[in-house]
Amino acid sequence: MGIDVRVCFVGDSLVAGVGDPDHLGWTGRLAARTHQAGWPLTAYNLGVRRDTTADALRRGPAECAARLPAGSDPGVVLSLGVNDTTLEAGRPRIAAPYSAANLDMLLRHCRDARWPVLVVGPPPVDDEAQNDRIAGLDGLFASLCQRRTVPYVSVLPVLRGDPTWRREVFEGDGAHPGRDGYALLADLVLPAWDAWVGGLFSGRWTAPWS
Amino acid sequence: MGIDVRVCFVGDSLVAGVGDPDHLGWTGRLAARTHQAGWPLTAYNLGVRRDTTADALRRGPAECAARLPAGSDPGVVLSLGVNDTTLEAGRPRIAAPYSAANLDMLLRHCRDARWPVLVVGPPPVDDEAQNDRIAGLDGLFASLCQRRTVPYVSVLPVLRGDPTWRREVFEGDGAHPGRDGYALLADLVLPAWDAWVGGLFSGRWTAPWS
Repeated sequence: MGIDVRVCFVGDSLVAGVGDPDHLGWTGRLAARTHQAGWPLTAYNLGVRRDTTADALRRGPAECAARLPAGSDPGVVLSLGVNDTTLEAGRPRIAAPYSAANLDMLLRHCRDARWPVLVVGPPPVDDEAQNDRIAGLDGLFASLCQRRTVPYVSVLPVLRGDPTWRREVFEGDGAHPGRDGYALLADLVLPAWDAWVGGLFSGRWTAPWS
Repeated sequence: MGIDVRVCFVGDSLVAGVGDPDHLGWTGRLAARTHQAGWPLTAYNLGVRRDTTADALRRGPAECAARLPAGSDPGVVLSLGVNDTTLEAGRPRIAAPYSAANLDMLLRHCRDARWPVLVVGPPPVDDEAQNDRIAGLDGLFASLCQRRTVPYVSVLPVLRGDPTWRREVFEGDGAHPGRDGYALLADLVLPAWDAWVGGLFSGRWTAPWS
């Protein structure tokens, strides 16, 4: 039996690609690019609207387990955090240290299941105060992933100043871009994705902390 | 708050779009078509490789519940059956009457949750003996859906004789088509999809058997 790469994308509405008229989002664009370059893979989109790191921790492991059977070459991409920073009654839905702890528990679960992981940071929305909170999370997530030797792609700094992203999010619902914004996000993630998914195809991956 | 249509596609690898270099499958093509016609919707693809009706019954309700919150306009598309008919040790993985019972339990669950349902029948593979078993299931599913007043789209009769479908499945892995086959399947489902999803957008849907 040859290489059988299967990747679960666990995350929120941005992972689900909400607002993209092409219904590909950034995850579908990355999967199609790899497939069309001659590396067919199975991609499972497990993005859910409104999901926080806590929601993903609750459902992610079971949903991934149903899709990553023994004998396949599995991988998990995690992208979460924007919904954690949304205010409810004046407080973030999940306080930043808890967001990082939830991500860490997801990373530990993936390590124990021997699923290689790539983490993509939370993108900006159309609210600068929330973007400051997202930037805080982005920093926490980056250090955590560095400690865990898991690859991390920060996208906030570039997208926050990108006119296309800002315009599409503003003209959309304030949180989701359209076709061009998702294409831009896919381009930002592409180098890290290529390196990571290339590792899955070559079977070169080894568990971190091992 | 306006209409907020969210549709879960529950099924197997054909729902997941395995083999499609565009990573849209038939479900992504339908969602994109509706979106681009001015009806933006959230689509969740919950197709899983190798899943039988029994597997979908086990995971489908929880996965849909996590994605169809109160206050949204929900819908569920079910498409299963091919894997039930695969032989293991000379017998189908799930015998046809049990496949129909599993589908019926899924329909009952959707009815109780007040999720409108559309059922798409199992497509053919590159094995005429298995296609005969799939045809048997297709007939059972059609009668069941008629009894339950749930719309059903039979796709086997057309695809079984379609040269594009047959060629792509043969040149693929024997079970999955490529880009053109998925586009063809989307076209076959389109009229029933348009009528059904139009009902979701208009809020005209009422529970069957009520």
